[in-house]
Amino acid sequence: MTDGVTARKRGRPPRTESADTRDRILAAAREEFSERGYEKTSVRGIAKAAGVDSALVHHYFGTKEQVFEAAVEVAFAPALVVRDTVLEGSVEDVGERMTRMIFGLWENPVTRAPLLAIVRSAVNNEAAASVFRRLVSAQLLRRIAGELDAPDAELRAELAAAQLVGIAMLRYVIKVEPLASADVEQIIARVAPVVQGHLTGA
Amino acid sequence: MTDGVTARKRGRPPRTESADTRDRILAAAREEFSERGYEKTSVRGIAKAAGVDSALVHHYFGTKEQVFEAAVEVAFAPALVVRDTVLEGSVEDVGERMTRMIFGLWENPVTRAPLLAIVRSAVNNEAAASVFRRLVSAQLLRRIAGELDAPDAELRAELAAAQLVGIAMLRYVIKVEPLASADVEQIIARVAPVVQGHLTGA
Repeated sequence: MTDGVTARKRGRPPRTESADTRDRILAAAREEFSERGYEKTSVRGIAKAAGVDSALVHHYFGTKEQVFEAAVEVAFAPALVVRDTVLEGSVEDVGERMTRMIFGLWENPVTRAPLLAIVRSAVNNEAAASVFRRLVSAQLLRRIAGELDAPDAELRAELAAAQLVGIAMLRYVIKVEPLASADVEQIIARVAPVVQGHLTGA
Repeated sequence: MTDGVTARKRGRPPRTESADTRDRILAAAREEFSERGYEKTSVRGIAKAAGVDSALVHHYFGTKEQVFEAAVEVAFAPALVVRDTVLEGSVEDVGERMTRMIFGLWENPVTRAPLLAIVRSAVNNEAAASVFRRLVSAQLLRRIAGELDAPDAELRAELAAAQLVGIAMLRYVIKVEPLASADVEQIIARVAPVVQGHLTGA
């Protein structure tokens, strides 16, 4: 047994310690990307914020783009949980469920910060845009499109998403008034039928 | 007359030369802001690209934010010309005219580049966002809202704009497929009624 213990001490840390380190790096990455944006964030800066060596960040995640993707995936996990509730239920009110899902994420400060980081990064950097395309369009929009019985389902899902993305831009990112201060239920009441129209309209 | 000539030589350059320099600085500024985004652009870099001293940039425009605002105003001038055609004609198809105006600007590579610069900068920087709010919402959306006979005209104009902003984000900035490659007339046909609905719908 002595050999086994020695081997473990010399090699990788045991499972739980390793998972803790991984989580700590991801939390630091999310923080750094949110505050500085994709371009100004470095693997070195993430490592420093997590209190580990840069080599360990590379070991767990690879390149900066891969750390970003992992951080976005974690930040995006609540959206994927809610997505499943969007997909459940009648297609006749999928527009309202999709609208409520998006506003639920943006109105909550905990999920708003990583969303802001994703938008800011994707707008300014091709690697980050590519992560956005893989996650948002593949995991979210294509799944919603899959529920629609239409040959142009993906385009419909994207035009619906565009309405919500545009409101998020003007309300939460650029903060144009009166939209930025409007009551969220008032916005949902106006926008849900538009989203529904894109998804299932004539 | 000799005194006058001497004074002119020692003082500011004559009118036309001064206008040329101003234009050259603005062109350099537009180029720098488009390529680097607001935060990474410096007055020094703009001066260098224009082949003038930084002091001259400050002399003509003031701070970096003021250079940005002047550059955006120039880039935005075609939109203001088209805006007037949007405002002319029946309110019943203002949605289609507004939609065509926005796609006209984004589909043209000459006007697309400064629009990209405005979006990238406004998303990442509060000073640039403030310029966006002053120009786009005050000069464009409030004027369109002024044509509508509704108490919530500004909110309507912003929700209509949000549909178009969101499509621009997904199609031209993040390039999500199939929207990025879809035929522009097909998009206009689907979106113009939605924009019209926001502006004048029940």
